[in-house]
Amino acid sequence: MIHSDGFRALGREECLRLLGKVPVGRVVYTRHALPAVLPVNFTLDPDGSVVLCTSADSDLVRAVDGVVVAFEADDFQAGRRSGWSVVVTGRAEVVSDPAEHERLLRTGPRSWMPLRDGVFVRIGGGMVTGRELTGTGDRS
Amino acid sequence: MIHSDGFRALGREECLRLLGKVPVGRVVYTRHALPAVLPVNFTLDPDGSVVLCTSADSDLVRAVDGVVVAFEADDFQAGRRSGWSVVVTGRAEVVSDPAEHERLLRTGPRSWMPLRDGVFVRIGGGMVTGRELTGTGDRS
Repeated sequence: MIHSDGFRALGREECLRLLGKVPVGRVVYTRHALPAVLPVNFTLDPDGSVVLCTSADSDLVRAVDGVVVAFEADDFQAGRRSGWSVVVTGRAEVVSDPAEHERLLRTGPRSWMPLRDGVFVRIGGGMVTGRELTGTGDRS
Repeated sequence: MIHSDGFRALGREECLRLLGKVPVGRVVYTRHALPAVLPVNFTLDPDGSVVLCTSADSDLVRAVDGVVVAFEADDFQAGRRSGWSVVVTGRAEVVSDPAEHERLLRTGPRSWMPLRDGVFVRIGGGMVTGRELTGTGDRS
């Protein structure tokens, strides 16, 4: 669907395909009653959930475990004023199942920072929305 | 300051210098009691506030005018597992002063999308934090 204001809404499958193309996204949550955001590298599980790796005792885990967060990734080309963004909104949960943790040690993301006591956090891919900016903006 | 977990906290001036190098950031706010995030192009005012341009009747304006939001920008190099991110947390307000609106028509951002009834939104730069990932993560 092309919107009159210059962007196209993306379907779920297209969103997931695009998410798989970038290494870094941003966890969006609330911390001390203020909006907060933290970039992280991630992988995408086949069911469309986002998986990231962080320290068990991190501020992020304390803030997001068990609550609904948003996860955003995008890629824009400034010269063409075009690009895309995708937002996954879902419940974040520390992976506590040993077999699942073991699987993610093999297939999941590796933190870009050295971690003590690393855990995986899964953001359920219940709601996935995206849009593509088609480069039709005012170029004046 | 180098943290043991592989990142360096950035000072306010360094944060603002980095913000000035990228065209797109992300407004982080709450919509219908859920965390929400929207990428936008922006400019930086000399006082460190972030200015963006959108439609007066947009969902974004309805959600953020008069409330505290976060604004995030970053730049990462996946191959080197390094990069930076900056977050400005402050009150978002539609610019209502005619002289200020006029000034921003000349010096402020231009929307990448065609707008009807465009307005400028300023995010006060009261709290500016940033960190640089120094590429010392686990490369295994």
